[in-house]
Amino acid sequence: MSTPDAASAGAPAATARTPHDLPDVTGLVVGVLGGTGPQGRGLAYRLAKAGQQVVIGSRSADRAAAAAAELGLGVRGADNAATAAESDVVIVAVPWEGHAELLTSLRAELAGKIVVDCVNPLGFDKQGAYALKPEEGSAAQQAAALLPGSRVTAAFHHLSAVLLEDREVDEIDIDVLVLGEERAATDVVQALAARIPGMRGVFAGRLRNAHQVESLVANLISVNRRYKAHAGLRITDV
Amino acid sequence: MSTPDAASAGAPAATARTPHDLPDVTGLVVGVLGGTGPQGRGLAYRLAKAGQQVVIGSRSADRAAAAAAELGLGVRGADNAATAAESDVVIVAVPWEGHAELLTSLRAELAGKIVVDCVNPLGFDKQGAYALKPEEGSAAQQAAALLPGSRVTAAFHHLSAVLLEDREVDEIDIDVLVLGEERAATDVVQALAARIPGMRGVFAGRLRNAHQVESLVANLISVNRRYKAHAGLRITDV
Repeated sequence: MSTPDAASAGAPAATARTPHDLPDVTGLVVGVLGGTGPQGRGLAYRLAKAGQQVVIGSRSADRAAAAAAELGLGVRGADNAATAAESDVVIVAVPWEGHAELLTSLRAELAGKIVVDCVNPLGFDKQGAYALKPEEGSAAQQAAALLPGSRVTAAFHHLSAVLLEDREVDEIDIDVLVLGEERAATDVVQALAARIPGMRGVFAGRLRNAHQVESLVANLISVNRRYKAHAGLRITDV
Repeated sequence: MSTPDAASAGAPAATARTPHDLPDVTGLVVGVLGGTGPQGRGLAYRLAKAGQQVVIGSRSADRAAAAAAELGLGVRGADNAATAAESDVVIVAVPWEGHAELLTSLRAELAGKIVVDCVNPLGFDKQGAYALKPEEGSAAQQAAALLPGSRVTAAFHHLSAVLLEDREVDEIDIDVLVLGEERAATDVVQALAARIPGMRGVFAGRLRNAHQVESLVANLISVNRRYKAHAGLRITDV
C-alpha cells in the first residue's frame, strides 16, 4: 500500500523559497492554440478578463479574428504560427487527434516558449469516457518529445468549458494542477492560473506523471453525469 | 480538447434517486486486509471510531490481534481468511507486490462480498514516485479479474496514513473517489466513507477508469514534497 506520505519525509524541496512565492506574469502575452474551441475560448476569456494580453490561434486567421472580436477584452486573433511566435506562453487546447501534427508544424515558433499542454486524450463509447494512453505516456510527454526546444508544462486539464465561458460566473472554484520539469516554467504557469479569480495553480509533479492528471477528466465526466455538476478539484492542506 | 462537460449533457443518471441518498451501513462489519500496515491501521481506527464494527486481517492472527488491541475501540484481529469470511465489506490495503497472490488465495472467502481495493501501484526512484501500469489496467481491475464472484470497488486511495493515524486529528478533509460497476456496491462504499468526519464518498466512474485515480497518488506525493503538506482532494460543485 503506497500512501501519499510515502516520499514526503524524503529530500527537502529544491529551493528554500516558499512554493507560494510566484513570479509576476502580468506583462506576459498568452497565446491559445485551439482558441476557437470551447475550452480555448473559455480560457482566453478568463485570462483576458484578468488583464492578461491574449492572442487566440486557429488554422484560419479570419476565424481567429472573428472569435477574438466576439470575446472583446483586447483579445487578438491570428493563425496558429503567428500566435505561437507572438506569445511568451502558449496554451495548447486542441483536440487530441490533431495534437502531434500541430505541434510538429510549430516547432520553430514554439522554441524557447513556455508551452502549456491541456489536452486530455480520451475515448468515448456507450459506457462513457475512458483514458487513451499515448505512446509517449501522455499528451504532455508527446509535446515534450516533439518540442525539444520548448519549455513544456501541463495544466488546465480539468476546467469546465461551460463555466469558463459563462459570463455570469465570476469565480472558477478549482485548483489547476501544474506539471513540468523546470520550476521556473511551472511557477509561471501557476502564477497565470492564479490570475483567474477562484483558481490556484498547484505544482503536481513531473511530466511522467501527467497521464493520470489528463485522464482524470474521464472520472470528472462520471461525476458530472451522476451529480449533474460541473465538478472540479481542490487540493486540501495546500 | 476533451473537457469534463463533454458527456454531461448526455444520458441522464441511471436512476431517479438522488446520488446523495445512500444506504444505512452502520450494521456492516468491515474487514481490513493489510490492517497492520499504516494505511490499513489508520482506516480501521477511523471506521471504528465512527462506530463501525471492524476486523483487521494479517497473515498472522497473532499480529492482527496485537494491532487490534492497540487500536482499541472494539476492533478485532484475525488472519486474512477469517477476516474476509467474517466481514460484509472487505478493504484491501496491502502492498501492490502481494496484491494478486493474496486475493487469489481468498477467492472463496471474498465471494459475494463487497471488496474495496485501495492499492496504488507505484514505483519510486531518485525523481520520486511514478505510476506502474498493471497488466489488467489497474489494481482494481486486477482484483475484479481475480475475484469474479465478488463485488469489486475501488476507493480510499488518496488518504494520508499520517493523518488517519493521528489521534489529535478529528476530521479528515478529503473526498473519497469511489469506483465500481454496480451502484448498490459503490453506494455502500460511499456511505462508509461518509461515516468518517470530514470525508465524503463521491462516485467517480467505472473500474476501467481506476488507473488514473490510483496513480494520482504519485502527484499527491509531489504536492506533499513541494508544499510540505498532507494533500487530499475535494470535488467542487458536488
